[in-house]
Amino acid sequence: MKVGINFFPTVGPEDKPAHRYYDECLELAVLAEQLGFAHIKTVEHYFHPYGGYSPDPVTFLTAVAARTDTIRVATGAAIPAFTHPVKLAGKLAMLDNISHGRLDVGFGRAFLPDEFAAFNISMDTSRDRFNEGVEACRALWTEEKVVWDGQFTQFGPVTLLPRPFQQPHPPILVAAAFTPESCESAGTKGYGLLLVPSISRRERVQEMLALYRDARAAAGHEGPGTVQMSYNCYLDEDGDAARHWAAVHAGHYNQRLQDAVSGWASTTSSDYKGYERLVEQVKKADFATSLQENKVLAGTPEEVLAQVRTIRDWYGEITVSLQVNSGNTPVEAAAETMRLFAGRVMPHLAG
Amino acid sequence: MKVGINFFPTVGPEDKPAHRYYDECLELAVLAEQLGFAHIKTVEHYFHPYGGYSPDPVTFLTAVAARTDTIRVATGAAIPAFTHPVKLAGKLAMLDNISHGRLDVGFGRAFLPDEFAAFNISMDTSRDRFNEGVEACRALWTEEKVVWDGQFTQFGPVTLLPRPFQQPHPPILVAAAFTPESCESAGTKGYGLLLVPSISRRERVQEMLALYRDARAAAGHEGPGTVQMSYNCYLDEDGDAARHWAAVHAGHYNQRLQDAVSGWASTTSSDYKGYERLVEQVKKADFATSLQENKVLAGTPEEVLAQVRTIRDWYGEITVSLQVNSGNTPVEAAAETMRLFAGRVMPHLAG
Repeated sequence: MKVGINFFPTVGPEDKPAHRYYDECLELAVLAEQLGFAHIKTVEHYFHPYGGYSPDPVTFLTAVAARTDTIRVATGAAIPAFTHPVKLAGKLAMLDNISHGRLDVGFGRAFLPDEFAAFNISMDTSRDRFNEGVEACRALWTEEKVVWDGQFTQFGPVTLLPRPFQQPHPPILVAAAFTPESCESAGTKGYGLLLVPSISRRERVQEMLALYRDARAAAGHEGPGTVQMSYNCYLDEDGDAARHWAAVHAGHYNQRLQDAVSGWASTTSSDYKGYERLVEQVKKADFATSLQENKVLAGTPEEVLAQVRTIRDWYGEITVSLQVNSGNTPVEAAAETMRLFAGRVMPHLAG
Repeated sequence: MKVGINFFPTVGPEDKPAHRYYDECLELAVLAEQLGFAHIKTVEHYFHPYGGYSPDPVTFLTAVAARTDTIRVATGAAIPAFTHPVKLAGKLAMLDNISHGRLDVGFGRAFLPDEFAAFNISMDTSRDRFNEGVEACRALWTEEKVVWDGQFTQFGPVTLLPRPFQQPHPPILVAAAFTPESCESAGTKGYGLLLVPSISRRERVQEMLALYRDARAAAGHEGPGTVQMSYNCYLDEDGDAARHWAAVHAGHYNQRLQDAVSGWASTTSSDYKGYERLVEQVKKADFATSLQENKVLAGTPEEVLAQVRTIRDWYGEITVSLQVNSGNTPVEAAAETMRLFAGRVMPHLAG
């Protein structure tokens, strides 16, 4: 089982100035490489303390790539709807080269109404924009003299520079929240999958995984495919202390999420069925239940190992991304979580 | 007189793979900081070996920022027409924070027909898009709850995250090639100026500088303003060898430029008066004449010092950006140019 780190900023200027947040994350990224974690991932969001310190994941990940040698860097996720494919494919190819082929490209549709409004894009075009954007990037990476005649962008013949370091292109993963079709489509196309286990029941996640794996096998792609899931994570030698602080930072995180999804109270979209219930769902979130359902990892290393083993029993050989500085966790506590996980959990997950 | 380094890639995959080009530039950037150069700058271009290895200057400059501590990083220039202001202002603010306030933002209009065609943008809207894009970024950096109702983008109220490290915003410079109004406008607004001395007669550059400085003074801005000019530069203890190799690499550079501007043979635009003559002008370029007119710096350190002193006599206290790896200069030769300049030219330019 591979384990990486996901930086999902949920702080704003009133919590922590941005330069300190980036400094801390870069320090943790260097530590992650030393400790043997598999990847550093970050999100794309705007305006709100929920993700807003990362309007361009490629920018932060390039700093990580420049400071490290072996750990992979992953967008989780970059949003094709908000950037022209020539620009998006170009900067991702730059990062792939600067990192000497350590890039995994997670693509997402985005889901916050305020973000679509700022880019003046109808949410009802989200799925079509996503599909077109991903395929346009893939064409720009793999073909020369690309002529693209899409619904949203038209260009060519053009040959993208730089060519990607990884051939034929960096691994692609697609984010799926609730939508079965997204999982099937990812499997059919041979892409990896980014899932968010914290927002769905276990059975639902299992169904989505089965759809993905069946579609992948049916399309003749080798291996089980890469499936990444992110978990808030807080470890301490004292299990009660771990759960206490995990709950505090989860509360902070949840408050940020509530602020960010408030736009859903007055939004419906054919491309986002069920999302209008998001505000209520987020409000109902309860730490004790999340812990019990293994949607958050918190406790002693031994307790968290048991949780991760259960998750592996449920979902198989997935890749886990630990969110070690969720909420407004002090950097020392995040580093301690990583050290404890690397020293006392990871060794038991091999093979 | 401040002296920095400008990386203007003019190589493609047939010359040098992209990861090696970035590796070399990062190595030179670290050396530049050690040697006391003032900044690292890079361009935004697409598709052609002329600049195409830099479709996103922020990406490369973030790697520089992560590897260095004191040297400034500068876009020269980022193109507002090709990126939504929310995205552009956001990633520039990220870089400003990651670099702890070492960012200078040069904005440009772009001038290659193929690039406008790829983004499906009429060149005749270039000036209006540029002005709107720069002002939208400035608003997003300096104000909260920004409501923007422009000709090309509309959004708000939104508050950009992260806030810039430098307050009220990173220094802004605007690129001007031939257009007097661009110089006047930059002076009036208190922005710096990026000029390209290699494509204009000395008297023309002096006229543009006078317009800029007069407008700046008339608008009540303090100081002379920052004016940056880029020069291909090749130094060697053996002056003839320096000129020989400078000519070879200038030839390579010029060929790349010819390929890139070929679109102008069949293009005219009201926003780019005179550019349709560019193809012919570029073809006529002659190394010996350029050297004599101090449009390229080549020779022994003493010979180049004399050139730079002449340039200072002509233009006053400008900032110079040396293009030390133009054409396909080997990295060792570029490093030697930098060492000779720092050791034997720079000390005589103080004060």
